[in-house]
Amino acid sequence: MISKNKARFIISLQKKKVRDEEGLYIIEGDKLVREFMFAKVPVKTLIAKKEFISSLSPLLKECIGEIVDVSYEELKQISTLKTPHNALAVIPIPERILNAGTLLESLCVALDFVQDPGNLGTIIRAAAWFGIKNIICSHDCVDVYNPKVVQASMGAILHVNVYYADLINIAALAREQKIPVYGTLLEGESIYREKLGDKGLILMGNESRGISEEIMPFITHKIMIPPAASAKPGIDSLNVSMAASVVFSEFLRQISIINK
Amino acid sequence: MISKNKARFIISLQKKKVRDEEGLYIIEGDKLVREFMFAKVPVKTLIAKKEFISSLSPLLKECIGEIVDVSYEELKQISTLKTPHNALAVIPIPERILNAGTLLESLCVALDFVQDPGNLGTIIRAAAWFGIKNIICSHDCVDVYNPKVVQASMGAILHVNVYYADLINIAALAREQKIPVYGTLLEGESIYREKLGDKGLILMGNESRGISEEIMPFITHKIMIPPAASAKPGIDSLNVSMAASVVFSEFLRQISIINK
Repeated sequence: MISKNKARFIISLQKKKVRDEEGLYIIEGDKLVREFMFAKVPVKTLIAKKEFISSLSPLLKECIGEIVDVSYEELKQISTLKTPHNALAVIPIPERILNAGTLLESLCVALDFVQDPGNLGTIIRAAAWFGIKNIICSHDCVDVYNPKVVQASMGAILHVNVYYADLINIAALAREQKIPVYGTLLEGESIYREKLGDKGLILMGNESRGISEEIMPFITHKIMIPPAASAKPGIDSLNVSMAASVVFSEFLRQISIINK
Repeated sequence: MISKNKARFIISLQKKKVRDEEGLYIIEGDKLVREFMFAKVPVKTLIAKKEFISSLSPLLKECIGEIVDVSYEELKQISTLKTPHNALAVIPIPERILNAGTLLESLCVALDFVQDPGNLGTIIRAAAWFGIKNIICSHDCVDVYNPKVVQASMGAILHVNVYYADLINIAALAREQKIPVYGTLLEGESIYREKLGDKGLILMGNESRGISEEIMPFITHKIMIPPAASAKPGIDSLNVSMAASVVFSEFLRQISIINK
């Protein structure tokens, strides 16, 4: 059984302010919780149904600070999901120190004002698939530890580092070090024709607002995903997470050809 | 003001059974409603705030069967959105006669058991961008006129024809006509290396279940989106709408090179 205080505390972690103060966030779902434990992430608190707890090996249990068994009804009260699974865990937010110089030595994604949690989660998932290890978000992006982002990332936040920074500073550093800054726009060179390299910043903006005015001058390569010649003019562009998947894929394709 | 009966009728169109019986579906949002009217789609009923109605040209108004002005509160009651916009419209479901032979002369997408409305909407949007005009869904896919699909497609359902059929029959016809059937799987030839053509079926399955056993034998080209060599083993694959965006993009890239 879970105490009222603890239940209230777990629910309060849905708020960014509390997560920042406490340095904790929540993950949900049997698969995700298991994935975190297998990856040896320290679990502060595991809140789960008895069946889930008893299915864990003693070795896995050792990495858990505290285990609370609950009924489905109790789980439902603290869950962010409409139909909760069997487990929820409280995880310490890892400390991330941004070393932009090192990050720019490989491909790094910079997200400007991406506010939709589903989009950020999906972009993290695509980054993990296409081997991009680092994402730098502008301070006005959605919080990566927002439960909806965590859920949409499907465990990919285990493999991708997400930082928050002033993108102008990062772009300025790239310029200083003569590292390419690819800006994904609605106008530019086709990604299929542009020579895409294996280092630099891939800058993507908000769907409706695009990339901020102040960052635009730092872009060294304006790139775009060209619509089919037969596509109707005026159709809505791809959303930022679809665009990210396509752009990452094309980077990977070109890099793998170069490295052959 | 909207009558109780009409309000009840609009709400009932959220159910597939009613949509099928009535041959009607709903679209929401100022932008979408305008797009449909500009595309000369006959609007059976427009339900909107006074400001929206008075902003329409007489020419646009001519294509509308019936106009009902409502307050924000009335709109909220019949809306499927948490924060409705200013307009909602009832649209006749267009009659679509599937001529599979013709469809297979260009690229056509076949979706097997794609149940998530957001995914179907996003796939339609990607198809519109990459110039794919036809999608055939298995009968157990989500209904294309589900309000969430319509919303996620962002008007792309105006440019892409979505059919429902038994995919086995379509795949059998492709085999008979010696037309390629590309199956998107987790194992197969890399899409970057496979020679992708400008006609045939691009078959995509449900994220967790994959492509149905019965259809597998009809696949002539097993293709996959390879993860980066540096990607962690065991990471979750891309979801079906991200995969669709990447696959469509690669088809378009290769076709545009051939046609140069």
